[in-house]
Amino acid sequence: MPNRFPIRTDLAVEARETTLSGSEAESISGVVYQQQEEDGGRIHISRVLVKNEKGAKALGKPKGNYLTVEAQDMWKNEGGIHREVSEALAHQIRALLKEAGLKKSSSVLVVGLGNPEVTSDSLGPQVLGNLRITRTLYADGKISGIVPGVMAQTGMEAAEIVKGIVGETKPEAVIVIDALAARSVKRLGTTIQLTDTGIHPGSGVGNRRSRLDAETMGIPVIAIGAPTVVGAAAIVYDAVESLMEEVDEAERYQMVKDLVEPKLGPMIVTPKDIDDRVRRLSFVISEGLNIALLHDAYTGA
Amino acid sequence: MPNRFPIRTDLAVEARETTLSGSEAESISGVVYQQQEEDGGRIHISRVLVKNEKGAKALGKPKGNYLTVEAQDMWKNEGGIHREVSEALAHQIRALLKEAGLKKSSSVLVVGLGNPEVTSDSLGPQVLGNLRITRTLYADGKISGIVPGVMAQTGMEAAEIVKGIVGETKPEAVIVIDALAARSVKRLGTTIQLTDTGIHPGSGVGNRRSRLDAETMGIPVIAIGAPTVVGAAAIVYDAVESLMEEVDEAERYQMVKDLVEPKLGPMIVTPKDIDDRVRRLSFVISEGLNIALLHDAYTGA
Amino acid sequence: MPNRFPIRTDLAVEARETTLSGSEAESISGVVYQQQEEDGGRIHISRVLVKNEKGAKALGKPKGNYLTVEAQDMWKNEGGIHREVSEALAHQIRALLKEAGLKKSSSVLVVGLGNPEVTSDSLGPQVLGNLRITRTLYADGKISGIVPGVMAQTGMEAAEIVKGIVGETKPEAVIVIDALAARSVKRLGTTIQLTDTGIHPGSGVGNRRSRLDAETMGIPVIAIGAPTVVGAAAIVYDAVESLMEEVDEAERYQMVKDLVEPKLGPMIVTPKDIDDRVRRLSFVISEGLNIALLHDAYTGA
Amino acid sequence: MPNRFPIRTDLAVEARETTLSGSEAESISGVVYQQQEEDGGRIHISRVLVKNEKGAKALGKPKGNYLTVEAQDMWKNEGGIHREVSEALAHQIRALLKEAGLKKSSSVLVVGLGNPEVTSDSLGPQVLGNLRITRTLYADGKISGIVPGVMAQTGMEAAEIVKGIVGETKPEAVIVIDALAARSVKRLGTTIQLTDTGIHPGSGVGNRRSRLDAETMGIPVIAIGAPTVVGAAAIVYDAVESLMEEVDEAERYQMVKDLVEPKLGPMIVTPKDIDDRVRRLSFVISEGLNIALLHDAYTGA
Repeated sequence: MPNRFPIRTDLAVEARETTLSGSEAESISGVVYQQQEEDGGRIHISRVLVKNEKGAKALGKPKGNYLTVEAQDMWKNEGGIHREVSEALAHQIRALLKEAGLKKSSSVLVVGLGNPEVTSDSLGPQVLGNLRITRTLYADGKISGIVPGVMAQTGMEAAEIVKGIVGETKPEAVIVIDALAARSVKRLGTTIQLTDTGIHPGSGVGNRRSRLDAETMGIPVIAIGAPTVVGAAAIVYDAVESLMEEVDEAERYQMVKDLVEPKLGPMIVTPKDIDDRVRRLSFVISEGLNIALLHDAYTGA
Repeated sequence: MPNRFPIRTDLAVEARETTLSGSEAESISGVVYQQQEEDGGRIHISRVLVKNEKGAKALGKPKGNYLTVEAQDMWKNEGGIHREVSEALAHQIRALLKEAGLKKSSSVLVVGLGNPEVTSDSLGPQVLGNLRITRTLYADGKISGIVPGVMAQTGMEAAEIVKGIVGETKPEAVIVIDALAARSVKRLGTTIQLTDTGIHPGSGVGNRRSRLDAETMGIPVIAIGAPTVVGAAAIVYDAVESLMEEVDEAERYQMVKDLVEPKLGPMIVTPKDIDDRVRRLSFVISEGLNIALLHDAYTGA
Repeated sequence: MPNRFPIRTDLAVEARETTLSGSEAESISGVVYQQQEEDGGRIHISRVLVKNEKGAKALGKPKGNYLTVEAQDMWKNEGGIHREVSEALAHQIRALLKEAGLKKSSSVLVVGLGNPEVTSDSLGPQVLGNLRITRTLYADGKISGIVPGVMAQTGMEAAEIVKGIVGETKPEAVIVIDALAARSVKRLGTTIQLTDTGIHPGSGVGNRRSRLDAETMGIPVIAIGAPTVVGAAAIVYDAVESLMEEVDEAERYQMVKDLVEPKLGPMIVTPKDIDDRVRRLSFVISEGLNIALLHDAYTGA
Repeated sequence: MPNRFPIRTDLAVEARETTLSGSEAESISGVVYQQQEEDGGRIHISRVLVKNEKGAKALGKPKGNYLTVEAQDMWKNEGGIHREVSEALAHQIRALLKEAGLKKSSSVLVVGLGNPEVTSDSLGPQVLGNLRITRTLYADGKISGIVPGVMAQTGMEAAEIVKGIVGETKPEAVIVIDALAARSVKRLGTTIQLTDTGIHPGSGVGNRRSRLDAETMGIPVIAIGAPTVVGAAAIVYDAVESLMEEVDEAERYQMVKDLVEPKLGPMIVTPKDIDDRVRRLSFVISEGLNIALLHDAYTGA
């Protein structure tokens, strides 16, 4: 059932929900979905595997693995589970690196995409601020990092900058951090996605870069992102959908389109405490990276 | 026709629109509405005068003057009209000060409410950053300024802090700057409201302060604010309203309430470029203040 | 032996060293000096008690207690003793509060003097950023806080602002945090001074405030400060002094004065890592305050 | 007369002053010195040309051109000459680009070296913040920009990062901005140096990068720098020198060395208003670049 209202999400797990209805999902051979819980149900981990072109087309996402680590309590002051989420994340990072053929002691370039001066786009730079950089210190596990800036500031695609640095400093893998857009407000500040497909044009909060993946970089590229905004159109669509169940779907689509596009296009929905949530997310992701990359090997050995 | 969906707006001009339908507005003796255009139609100035308790109850706003300076082009890089808006604003500030009995050479304390670390709430502190402080320099036109911070940072109501400072330094008027919430996204970054009613509990983006008005301070209090956010519920309600014209209003209200409250309560809608818009607004307001307070008298002399 | 080269220091312990030579110090009845070590000699605590006007004149400091907590390792990454210093500081804060007649559950207003935008003057604002504010939360131990800003930003003396707030919110004591100037570079980032004499004109890195003490505020005022700069003239004087031992002191004084004043007046000496040292100092002081004010009583009970 | 006290300066004009005494300077064939005045004597422009290895050894600077733009009034609020200095700077930038064979419409990568979080080292990043980036906009005059960060943040030499980006984006020249160390406090905030020799190890406020010059980059590299600090040892040496004229120079050297090294090594001297001065310098340099690179050709045509 294609052509549903094309409100963009960067999360594969949401693309799957909105694109494939329950039974349909099972039957599509191109997409595999799995989920599990950790920490007594407080951390929810799901995996969307896009196996082939058929699945990629259905979901609008490239072939590859999409892992989601969710924790509704992540950002709470009391009873928060920062540390547990960081460790779950570290585990998934190691698994992806191992799957990509990386060994213990591999060198990794971590890239913080986004604009440090725009709160909702500053996740990447903030993660880099917390990261332990070891390339100049260690024989093994060499971590380097760069905040390439956005095109309005540099005049260059982030992908150009990263490719140049990769060519000169020869890391064995790239890990890219970026802020994402989600479809549902409940994802804001609670969900982290990892994928081995890298970053593609049109992804992310800005639309500022060309492809940054294994093919363009010549080495494995893992992307880690977290939603910081929801398009305003999405919440209108959700509201209308539940209220207009009797209306034909195509007609409903047109009504919302007419309603939303003229004035809500550039609007975003964020929590009031977005500044604080981005800070917390960046801390959890940095810790995940610090654990994954420095606390011994990701070979599982 | 009371009990319309109570989505909050801090703008009197919006409260009037949503509360009073066209003909009704004219007939209500308690509220007077006037408008005019300047700069070849690029600046729109409206005035809502709440004359008595009847009007105050209808609008949900205290008695007094509410002036709105609107310019859709204010924040554009090309063809922007920062300067013109600053001057229109300065003109209104002087008029309100004069109406409040202030003379040329009066001393004014300017208060920047809000949290400098939260973009959408940082308008007040940013305005103070651009303001010319002259209390220590001039014999006349003594401007002092304070950023009292938010209660989570200080443990005190902004009103307590300001009242203490007023008691100690004896200014003749207070001008309070604050970020506001609007009902319509088209107000974000384009509208500035001035009022001689001060600030009241429940106003503003945060809900952080008790009354800060002429009665509590003992001197005239003028509030200048600009909307930086729209409640997410508002845009859903607008969408639903236009789609469900046949549904009974009371029923419609209940449906939206059920839909919106559980998940959209704390969400806000902002433009992607909110960081930039707040910077620009703060510049226009500071310039308005600098012109009004320093370029000769606001006595009209 | 008066009239030594008047290079200013805000530390009583340094004023004593430069003003009173060894045997002389003992004999002056107006100044008592004590010292002790903690944490295996890694924390050095000294106390200068200025008992009367004679001592005050000799030292150029008002009558009262001056406690200094020093730790050369405070700011080191490895083997640093942040926590130990915070606890030693907390102990001294409690003792001063108790001596001032404050009981457990007293309410305290903490004031962060200085300019947040000038690194060497930002200690006060940075401490306030880390402080736990509890006035709105607890029945006991009510902590409130204010960053009054500097006169160029507000047009008001910090003392005026604080006095107004004290009058309105009625705390039982004020604790003022400020950046200081020292005489010796080895004090930078390693020394914290506490005093029950408050802040006096001409103290501090800027020269921006009038008296902020028990007499002007009407309640006990404790000042906590740490040196972040050394006047450039001081290091020249030290150098010259050791090289010119044969030259007559009066002549030496004149030579240095001629040399130093014309060009070094406004210069300061700081470590290259001043930004980092101020951050670390602010953390230690905030923790000291958090421990002293929140972890049970400072009644010693 | 070698072996003078080796207090480091990044300014060729100071290296010349301290290394070569008057008549000697004239006679050394390896170094040419010229000076001129502009703007009625308020802007002083000097040129040190290091012609050969003999001159390079004498000065401790690589062969090439060193231009200095000085204006004691640059940073004053009243009567300041920001604009005039920016234009004088633009003129020199164009001359150096032309001499390096660059044509109108050449593409240039501007590199902001240094640490944005350390005031005295933040000149490069601040200049980049004010620069007009046009690579994505224009057919001609393509300006791109990068803030590579410091090695502790990235794990990479700035030169590696820049070289990678040069290889990928193919600019025709690199302009590097960096904070410098001077010998005399009167240079702080008043002097800007341009050179076609690039950046060499051991230059700059930090010591963080390997060579970044035409040889390593394969294209012309122009460096623009301004002193933000003076080593504390320098001012001691100056003081001692003028006081000890009768002492033998070699002995004097040893005395100062013994005195200064143990405790003043890592100390720097800055003006109290260093934060403000760096902001102003960065503005002047950006404007100079904006004028030089965007206002028509640097071909002189």
